[in-house]
Amino acid sequence: MTASRTIGGYLIEQLQGHGVDHVFGIPGDYVLSFFDLMARHETLDLINTCDEQGAGFAADAYARVRGLGAVCVTYCVGGLKIANTTAQAYAEKSPVVVISGAPGVEERLNNPMLHHKVKEFDTQLRVFKEFTVASALLDNPATAPAEIDRVIHAALRYKRPVYLELPRDMVTKECPAHHTHARETETSAPESLKEALSEAVSLINEAKRPVILAGVEIHRFGLQPQLLAFAQKTGIPVASTILGKSVISEKSPLYLGIYEGATGREEVREYVESSDCLIILGAFMTDLNLGVYTANIDPGRSIFAISERTSIKHHHYDDILFEEFIGGLSTSAIRPRTPDALPQPMEPDPVQAGNGNDPITAKRLFERLNTFIKDTTVVIADVGDTLFGANDLLIHEATEFLSPAYYASLGFAVPAAMGAQLANPAHRPLVLTGDGSFQMTGMELSTAALFKLNPIVIVLDNKGYSTERPMLDGPFNDIHPWNFSLVPELLSAGKGFHVNTEAQLERALAKAEAYLDGFTIIHVSIDRDDRSPALLRLSERLAKRVRK
Amino acid sequence: MTASRTIGGYLIEQLQGHGVDHVFGIPGDYVLSFFDLMARHETLDLINTCDEQGAGFAADAYARVRGLGAVCVTYCVGGLKIANTTAQAYAEKSPVVVISGAPGVEERLNNPMLHHKVKEFDTQLRVFKEFTVASALLDNPATAPAEIDRVIHAALRYKRPVYLELPRDMVTKECPAHHTHARETETSAPESLKEALSEAVSLINEAKRPVILAGVEIHRFGLQPQLLAFAQKTGIPVASTILGKSVISEKSPLYLGIYEGATGREEVREYVESSDCLIILGAFMTDLNLGVYTANIDPGRSIFAISERTSIKHHHYDDILFEEFIGGLSTSAIRPRTPDALPQPMEPDPVQAGNGNDPITAKRLFERLNTFIKDTTVVIADVGDTLFGANDLLIHEATEFLSPAYYASLGFAVPAAMGAQLANPAHRPLVLTGDGSFQMTGMELSTAALFKLNPIVIVLDNKGYSTERPMLDGPFNDIHPWNFSLVPELLSAGKGFHVNTEAQLERALAKAEAYLDGFTIIHVSIDRDDRSPALLRLSERLAKRVRK
Repeated sequence: MTASRTIGGYLIEQLQGHGVDHVFGIPGDYVLSFFDLMARHETLDLINTCDEQGAGFAADAYARVRGLGAVCVTYCVGGLKIANTTAQAYAEKSPVVVISGAPGVEERLNNPMLHHKVKEFDTQLRVFKEFTVASALLDNPATAPAEIDRVIHAALRYKRPVYLELPRDMVTKECPAHHTHARETETSAPESLKEALSEAVSLINEAKRPVILAGVEIHRFGLQPQLLAFAQKTGIPVASTILGKSVISEKSPLYLGIYEGATGREEVREYVESSDCLIILGAFMTDLNLGVYTANIDPGRSIFAISERTSIKHHHYDDILFEEFIGGLSTSAIRPRTPDALPQPMEPDPVQAGNGNDPITAKRLFERLNTFIKDTTVVIADVGDTLFGANDLLIHEATEFLSPAYYASLGFAVPAAMGAQLANPAHRPLVLTGDGSFQMTGMELSTAALFKLNPIVIVLDNKGYSTERPMLDGPFNDIHPWNFSLVPELLSAGKGFHVNTEAQLERALAKAEAYLDGFTIIHVSIDRDDRSPALLRLSERLAKRVRK
Repeated sequence: MTASRTIGGYLIEQLQGHGVDHVFGIPGDYVLSFFDLMARHETLDLINTCDEQGAGFAADAYARVRGLGAVCVTYCVGGLKIANTTAQAYAEKSPVVVISGAPGVEERLNNPMLHHKVKEFDTQLRVFKEFTVASALLDNPATAPAEIDRVIHAALRYKRPVYLELPRDMVTKECPAHHTHARETETSAPESLKEALSEAVSLINEAKRPVILAGVEIHRFGLQPQLLAFAQKTGIPVASTILGKSVISEKSPLYLGIYEGATGREEVREYVESSDCLIILGAFMTDLNLGVYTANIDPGRSIFAISERTSIKHHHYDDILFEEFIGGLSTSAIRPRTPDALPQPMEPDPVQAGNGNDPITAKRLFERLNTFIKDTTVVIADVGDTLFGANDLLIHEATEFLSPAYYASLGFAVPAAMGAQLANPAHRPLVLTGDGSFQMTGMELSTAALFKLNPIVIVLDNKGYSTERPMLDGPFNDIHPWNFSLVPELLSAGKGFHVNTEAQLERALAKAEAYLDGFTIIHVSIDRDDRSPALLRLSERLAKRVRK
């Protein structure tokens, strides 16, 4: 019996066929035989994290970079720990395959009270149906391969998580070697596509100043080259949403910056909103993307395409594939133009000499990091001022910025760094996390140590839940202070630095850059009330709603 | 407007009316105004943890000790992080009130994409319906107080978690001051109760050697005094399930020990299984409670009462309240008897002199801890050999042992210690956790530091997922080693010790006992293959199923 003729073997084969070489998770008795199967597989690496939550976030980041990710856990006590990370993958369109071990089919007879069971045997399956696009209980060897195909293809098609439950007595069950497993090819309705493209081209050609607003689906569907081709061929400038940040190289002369209504930079807002033809591609119209609804976008002057829908002005097309619409735009006869003077992203300040003993501030930290970023840096920002401050970082290549900028779950960044670096070992993660978010999942640096990864982690310590203080402050925003730079002592791995001044930051960054053998953690202490201007603007807007 | 006339104020009032003086959680913008209301309340303490998972476990422990607990989090990114802890509370019957902030009712119009939203606005509510006994969206001030009553009463009645979702624009909305909020009084069907008691009394009086097997529902329904009265009046000895451990004082002369089929101690198994009238009270018939189905219990010789059902031999009564059946037994005319020679729980060995430099073993650690336990010690065991080894600890008073011995979610013990000590400040927690479980949630010692709690935490470091190694070993059972005794350096709080020998353990325990101002963490390094005999027996039985 070859491995690929068992259910477990077939599942591994399909994961690898779609680019998954690393599976994140924690074992437990219901999933132990599948872990054993994976561990024996020559080209698949098992990455066990400290807590399942870390595995979930890491798999999400891996999926964002690789196009598919996988997390494998035990029944309920493992699976329900990643309800939140899976919900985030759903909300932000990240194709994660959740694999859960489960009690054997035979064990379930007469509905016994087995350990890890919550209420019914299908409780976990029902929960995961709420935030996956496909799911299956693999309880039948005859249909398991087709079910695995159906579920994985849904993840690839919709760029959202899926759920596979593998009872432990099914792992080594033989299953059919041959079945229909070709991926169904979907296409747009040809007449709809033609009409929509023709309409879009006319609108763009008639416009005086078209602008592209590009969002995260460009990342998810791997359409960065088409977007870049479209912009370069036509000379139409590109702004990005915050969730879509790094959708094109931010060093491109056609890049305007982040558009997020009145929360963002004023010159970008004005340029985007005054366009007579806004081409919105793959951007979710979320509250944070829209600067808490301060955005002023007129649908009557917009072309709007996401994977679920294409709209031109006030009418919609339902049967157009997103990738075909973008592809069509990039090859259509749109007249090239030379854009007028564009807003430019903030250029990194040269590092100031002679101010070494000045206390470090959030503003100066981000300015300095802007010159620290290389072509091989992937920036991963956690929720908080780390995310707002990171808006102003200039990302060199496309898809080198990751953050949960819509669902906004704290604690993503450190575990995500493991996922991102394993997905693309040519990249070194620069992690921006806060003191609060580090306390949630930062000890996953233990996983970095175990697997010899070398992220550089900046802990921006502003002494509590700083994004909430301007909205409504109280003792609940205070947290216990940690000596983050001592994490390496605890783990006997990595290097740690505590930074209070600009000179100390300089030294720490230089040492971090030179140290390739493990993680570096840089604890940057700033004043409790030191915030980036972007965060101050956003918090003020949110505060109005909290106090209602 | 007094606080009690708003929805938020009424909710606080009701929590306090049922004994909840501490609410665990982490704020977020959708729940910030309710946090503010709680923080301003004079007699309610807000306990913010590092991660929501910690808050969920702490609230579960609080509920086990106090009779009701509460955890308050923000929408989805907070709520879905405690899906697992709530599922555990459901499975093991712990009455936790889950309160989640949520987008305002007005904000939900036109179904916008607000941050933290997964799919639909009711996604989280639907998830929580899977593992709560009652739930409500508090979107109507006119009905909110009655809904709050209904939901909290369900938690108290069924000893299981409930879910309240509080949209942020409802917190300070005025609501009716007067409504029907008397707790519904339930009673048994009198004839059924009478018949069942009469039958039970006859069986017991006819029996030669009746034995009580008491389970966790005795804790949950607060029936420890009635159980003790019943046992003492009749002279019937009491065994406990592992989930029910400490259901009576383990120093009682009528206490037999833990019964768990062939996994437990042989003399207890033999005594229980040879009884001609087994009185099973509040015990769940789970796989772990039954020694992985090695238990050999004959229903034809059993009286079985749990909150959902009463059975005598092979017939059932549906309409009998658990507490009334136990109360009835304790006052019925059952003839007193003097039991024959009973199995005795292992007596703590006196500490051996002269072996100070011997390496510490699991066996010796538990023997030593047995003499370390005081009347004011609450023992909290995480899943793993810490739980199996803890079986043999003699708990002095009733309800001073907490563990997730059915649902078996790793990472419970450290956060649970915060909940248990806040619920009963007269107790000092002795936490038994493994290296794997500590890596999941152990950094919640930060919360102990913030709130000046002083648990003594033993980290039994057996270098990985030791309970799984005998079932099926592989690199997935290895974890990165931590220097656990350096946690106090990282937190600038508490005291840490690293123990390799018996003499070092002696010193560390003495110092921990004397140090009252903060937590103590004692890192006990044992051999990778050193396991308690109970764990070896259990693992061998489980392995047969894994390899199927």
